[in-house]
Amino acid sequence: MTALVEAAAALLERVRAAPPRTHCLTNSVVQKFTADGLTAMGIHPSMTGSVEEAADFALGADALLVNLGTLDAARRAGIEAAVAAITPAGKPWALDPVHCDRSPGRLAFARELLGRGPGIVRGNSGEMAALGDIPAGMVRIETGAQDHLSDGSGRIVVSNGNPMMAKVTGTGCLAGALVASFLARAPNEPMLAGAAALAAFGIAGERAALHAKGPGSFAVALLDSLHAIGPDDIIRDARITHEPR
Amino acid sequence: MTALVEAAAALLERVRAAPPRTHCLTNSVVQKFTADGLTAMGIHPSMTGSVEEAADFALGADALLVNLGTLDAARRAGIEAAVAAITPAGKPWALDPVHCDRSPGRLAFARELLGRGPGIVRGNSGEMAALGDIPAGMVRIETGAQDHLSDGSGRIVVSNGNPMMAKVTGTGCLAGALVASFLARAPNEPMLAGAAALAAFGIAGERAALHAKGPGSFAVALLDSLHAIGPDDIIRDARITHEPR
Amino acid sequence: MTALVEAAAALLERVRAAPPRTHCLTNSVVQKFTADGLTAMGIHPSMTGSVEEAADFALGADALLVNLGTLDAARRAGIEAAVAAITPAGKPWALDPVHCDRSPGRLAFARELLGRGPGIVRGNSGEMAALGDIPAGMVRIETGAQDHLSDGSGRIVVSNGNPMMAKVTGTGCLAGALVASFLARAPNEPMLAGAAALAAFGIAGERAALHAKGPGSFAVALLDSLHAIGPDDIIRDARITHEPR
Repeated sequence: MTALVEAAAALLERVRAAPPRTHCLTNSVVQKFTADGLTAMGIHPSMTGSVEEAADFALGADALLVNLGTLDAARRAGIEAAVAAITPAGKPWALDPVHCDRSPGRLAFARELLGRGPGIVRGNSGEMAALGDIPAGMVRIETGAQDHLSDGSGRIVVSNGNPMMAKVTGTGCLAGALVASFLARAPNEPMLAGAAALAAFGIAGERAALHAKGPGSFAVALLDSLHAIGPDDIIRDARITHEPR
Repeated sequence: MTALVEAAAALLERVRAAPPRTHCLTNSVVQKFTADGLTAMGIHPSMTGSVEEAADFALGADALLVNLGTLDAARRAGIEAAVAAITPAGKPWALDPVHCDRSPGRLAFARELLGRGPGIVRGNSGEMAALGDIPAGMVRIETGAQDHLSDGSGRIVVSNGNPMMAKVTGTGCLAGALVASFLARAPNEPMLAGAAALAAFGIAGERAALHAKGPGSFAVALLDSLHAIGPDDIIRDARITHEPR
Repeated sequence: MTALVEAAAALLERVRAAPPRTHCLTNSVVQKFTADGLTAMGIHPSMTGSVEEAADFALGADALLVNLGTLDAARRAGIEAAVAAITPAGKPWALDPVHCDRSPGRLAFARELLGRGPGIVRGNSGEMAALGDIPAGMVRIETGAQDHLSDGSGRIVVSNGNPMMAKVTGTGCLAGALVASFLARAPNEPMLAGAAALAAFGIAGERAALHAKGPGSFAVALLDSLHAIGPDDIIRDARITHEPR
């Protein structure tokens, strides 16, 4: 067991002991699944996205997730209000540029948001390729069969997970929400926050697959596994490694 | 078995025999779960919230639920149109002031709606504390480990339920939708409507917990239990008691 | 086994071998369930509905679903933009006029869309009755205990399915999304596309019912069954028949 795995287990213990509030400005497809996944781990989600209320909710939370799926003008205004409100307070937030590779306007907005200083940006390979270079000091996470994390000076690979996760809509979005939530309890260690969240999520996926007959029963078992997972599971099963640059 | 339990069982029988249509102006997170929960009990939900159509759908329904989660200007306009449309007809409705304790604008809107005469207002302890005094004659329901109902002249406690219900996003919102639906079949007995709906929901939760490994499988089993529950289950398992003032 | 069943099995094989991208402009209640159902069959869904982005996503997809549930002005604008964008390209699309029998404005919009040339229009009996005559050459599908397909010159009946499907919110909407997806791989054979999609969906429902204790576990098993279903299942179990005019 590496020091990194030990640190990841300790961070999960902090999340369990003092569950953060995470405000999620996320797409309409995955709101319930994201909320259920966070709640299963004891985290307190909220989801209001309107320009009138997003700032209040973000300020009352410990971290913010900004997910660009099903973007429209109203959600864009809510995102801008929330990010503007929390930036002076230094509250941590994560950006998930969903489908920025499929709409020029969304890509431009994702790049604008990168300039506003999220601690972490997470996407799949297509999204991260479209996004291009990340500002120095920001943590970049590309999730997939393996998850690759980098901050310009170091690289981490998380190898937990199961292929069935790609058969359930919203697992990537839930991963982003977990990353933001773990960041709330390790705001100065975004590489650790990302690695711990993704290892926990991946292990939960591995266990869920043991009981699943298909993507329906897998999604149910995934929530059950997220509810059960604890620091000991990280110690036993996490596959987190530093990578040479 | 008390007269109250007997009356609750008889009301569930009426709901089963003549399932109401319930129009739900509810938040975007829980729409599907609310619709599934009502449909499981045979109730006919509809969900359209736009200002152009909310009044038509509310007028065509037997009861209306107004839930303030993920509020924005568009939903506010739809709520106002629907409440204005049904008030002259005396159609019953219930108010669920979700998170009114976390946004001043939402609290102000919740208080404005209280003045429009819902038959029942249901919230958790934080929401009900923020809301403050309820107009005379209206039924106030505070749900939690126990559910407390009052109408100014009497008090009822419903003690059914299971702690796992708090681990699934939207159980409180579904409780509100069930209360509104039962109110459709007992418009002049809002205390009974609330008690019967919450006892049925709580008993369904107790049974679901017997089969659940965590919040994912619990939510699935809860829908199965709602589908199966009938008047005999109320007679056997309901814990509904009058409380001294 | 009829030639029609054989052709349906061959079409499912094409969908499995070259899974289409289907852009779904659908109601907020069923977005996740629709996406999960398509993903379970290997189809790639997207859901963005805003006027700024709907055209880009529809152009990047192989087929479009337009579902009128929870309609509002913003979704209407997104639908118009997407349909206008794909029409010159001749990209196939299907219309699902949800609840057009319950709102005059929605019925008028549904009729306007019929004039824009969807390959298929699918609804339940109430919706199809409200809609009235369908333009010549368009395929009309009325789903229910049996599914009736017609194109003016011929009629097909699909008799697969299970009554539990009516207890889960959004099964009709998912049927529409599957029909649109199959149409992507048989754009000149809309009767076959509809019959194959509905037979596959109905068979998945029959298998799910074997494992279900109620609508919660049925919905889970339905996704598992959609994941597993293949051409051999169509050959074995499809009940698709031509009907005399």
